[in-house]
Amino acid sequence: MRSELTRRTFLTTAAAFGAAGAASTQFPQDLGAPRSGYGERSPYEKSVRYFRDSPTPGTGASRTPLQDLYGIITPSALHFERHHAGVPQIDPRQHELLIHGLVERPLVFSMKDLQRFPSVSQIYFIECAGNSGGEQAGQPGADPQRSHGLLSCSEWSGVPLKILLAEAGLKEKATWLVAEGADASRLARSFPLSKALEDVLVAYGQNGEALRPEQGYPLRLVVPGWEGNVNIKWLGRIQVVDQPYMTRDEAASYTDLMPDGKARWFTFEMEAKSVITRPAGGQVLDGPGFYEITGLAWSGRGTITRVEVSTDEGKTWAEAQLNSLVLPKAVARFSFPWRWDGGETSLQSRCIDNTGYIQPTRADLIAVRGVRAGPDGFNHYNGIKAWYVHRDGKVSHE
Amino acid sequence: MRSELTRRTFLTTAAAFGAAGAASTQFPQDLGAPRSGYGERSPYEKSVRYFRDSPTPGTGASRTPLQDLYGIITPSALHFERHHAGVPQIDPRQHELLIHGLVERPLVFSMKDLQRFPSVSQIYFIECAGNSGGEQAGQPGADPQRSHGLLSCSEWSGVPLKILLAEAGLKEKATWLVAEGADASRLARSFPLSKALEDVLVAYGQNGEALRPEQGYPLRLVVPGWEGNVNIKWLGRIQVVDQPYMTRDEAASYTDLMPDGKARWFTFEMEAKSVITRPAGGQVLDGPGFYEITGLAWSGRGTITRVEVSTDEGKTWAEAQLNSLVLPKAVARFSFPWRWDGGETSLQSRCIDNTGYIQPTRADLIAVRGVRAGPDGFNHYNGIKAWYVHRDGKVSHE
Repeated sequence: MRSELTRRTFLTTAAAFGAAGAASTQFPQDLGAPRSGYGERSPYEKSVRYFRDSPTPGTGASRTPLQDLYGIITPSALHFERHHAGVPQIDPRQHELLIHGLVERPLVFSMKDLQRFPSVSQIYFIECAGNSGGEQAGQPGADPQRSHGLLSCSEWSGVPLKILLAEAGLKEKATWLVAEGADASRLARSFPLSKALEDVLVAYGQNGEALRPEQGYPLRLVVPGWEGNVNIKWLGRIQVVDQPYMTRDEAASYTDLMPDGKARWFTFEMEAKSVITRPAGGQVLDGPGFYEITGLAWSGRGTITRVEVSTDEGKTWAEAQLNSLVLPKAVARFSFPWRWDGGETSLQSRCIDNTGYIQPTRADLIAVRGVRAGPDGFNHYNGIKAWYVHRDGKVSHE
Repeated sequence: MRSELTRRTFLTTAAAFGAAGAASTQFPQDLGAPRSGYGERSPYEKSVRYFRDSPTPGTGASRTPLQDLYGIITPSALHFERHHAGVPQIDPRQHELLIHGLVERPLVFSMKDLQRFPSVSQIYFIECAGNSGGEQAGQPGADPQRSHGLLSCSEWSGVPLKILLAEAGLKEKATWLVAEGADASRLARSFPLSKALEDVLVAYGQNGEALRPEQGYPLRLVVPGWEGNVNIKWLGRIQVVDQPYMTRDEAASYTDLMPDGKARWFTFEMEAKSVITRPAGGQVLDGPGFYEITGLAWSGRGTITRVEVSTDEGKTWAEAQLNSLVLPKAVARFSFPWRWDGGETSLQSRCIDNTGYIQPTRADLIAVRGVRAGPDGFNHYNGIKAWYVHRDGKVSHE
């Protein structure tokens, strides 16, 4: 525990909680439920992913309820979704991965084959390139789920792609790869071979068990720190090539339109970003007193080294504690003790990563990239997010 | 990726997998399932906790299917169980924690109160003291779940107990604590104040969401590295005292009976242990060739520094790779490349922690502690586990 808080900090808060000689609660007297094969959460827990109804329910996104999460692991049941043709139901005994193209030996791997190769397990975030794009567009999300919920973080297990490529044998001209999903949309993305040789996983495990169906069961690509779209789900094919292939999802979309009408292509890395998840929009403070401000910070470029919090509308900033594991290309949780005096203010966070990059303001970003209309804004928006505290204790996004 | 394997290592294996110019699989052509609020695992995944039927289904244990897990996180739905009066259904809005005894100010905390305090999140294993006791008794478990399945590992989130004790104010005579569960069994354990001031958590979060009911929802004690029984679930009361209170679960049970008829008391720390989970008992090898040997190693005393594997019945030992996060008082996953020649052999692992402690053999332990009859053996057994590979590819525990 790295808290530097002294006992004095909390004393009045504790008093406000009320002192008593005995708990008033009636504890259970009866025998509880029996053991079970596969557990469920408590019926008192109701947190769910958020999505807008649409005439094409298999296409679109659902958002992780960041305001309800603890630590850095996202429960697999609440990992954000982004599908282009729904969630296919794939029999793992039938599934195969083909590696072909500029290789000495085209190879087909069954799931059983893949599990005979050396595996690694690491905690990485996956974030949709469009996450928090509405902030840029001037249509900020009303709570952390709606503003930043296209972000999740899991322990991923699988085979390093470089091992499978070595099996196939790379030809000299090989410089890029095209990975394709086995769902009906056949979503495909190009990415440079150098990344594959660095840290890309062909993953079959998520948070200790098999991938969830919405996350690509039985096989997905995990491309640490890079935009979610490249982390191909239901992975069926990797073609080794000598140039980017300009697939639909890297030519018609997942580009960054600039004010001069040109677009940035292949902006893979997710820049450093942070968001306060409690207290945040949609929540209500129970009157003046002590609160923990907590939230998440992450960088696709590396490791978060510092998070700062402002509780006075950006006038002053103080260092938050990082009170979880702090890992490269994973979310880190920060914590900041705050005593609310009952007045109006705003709460903001900004982070710095180990490249020295500082999370920018919205104004900084707009100066370079302009404003795009529409609720989705643009991709790769990572501006500082403010939550507004009102005198009645309500917290909102404006 | 720390694999030191060269490309040559796998070439014949890859050839055995078969080479092809195109995948034979029929990939899905149809629109898949829509987005959902709270996801489920694939219907093809069937892994469950194991438990023996009994006339008192609320009392007893269920075991984690270690042979099916990846990485270091145990899915919350598969965390082992050990209940003394079933799983109570507790309304978190009604639940309270009382801290009293040798304190300046007895305090009652609601769940809402607790969530205003500074929190931390860390990955820790929890292991029942009786885990793998059958090995000692000469009744070894037939697979990793039956032999070592009273072990799980989660990211736990909550308030450091020392912060709450500081709120209450410790009196000078305070040296021990008694923690009591709010389930009908009112299970209680004593533990020294020094541990509380070191790293004990009052936890409300598990793997990103609220604790699961079987793990103490809405509140449990997490006592890193110490036997599971002390990690009081459904935590309702902590009494600050000046001596151990000799509760039922530390006097009548959870002691270590020695050959001379005396018992060791308060043997809290779980010693360094490891187990191979694949290939292991109950599994079948698909003929000679390359396999990844993988398993888990952990120590309640600190951090695993080395795991060694023997594939020749203990004659020689070679260092395995640690291919996950390696954290204090958490499980670490090891990986060892092995080419099976089709002959009979046994597979074994042993680990070393950062105190220099080396996992002992069963013979070493029996020499000191003797043999106790019965399938449960005794507590704190941590001997080396062997799995036997037969010519037909079957792997068994004998």
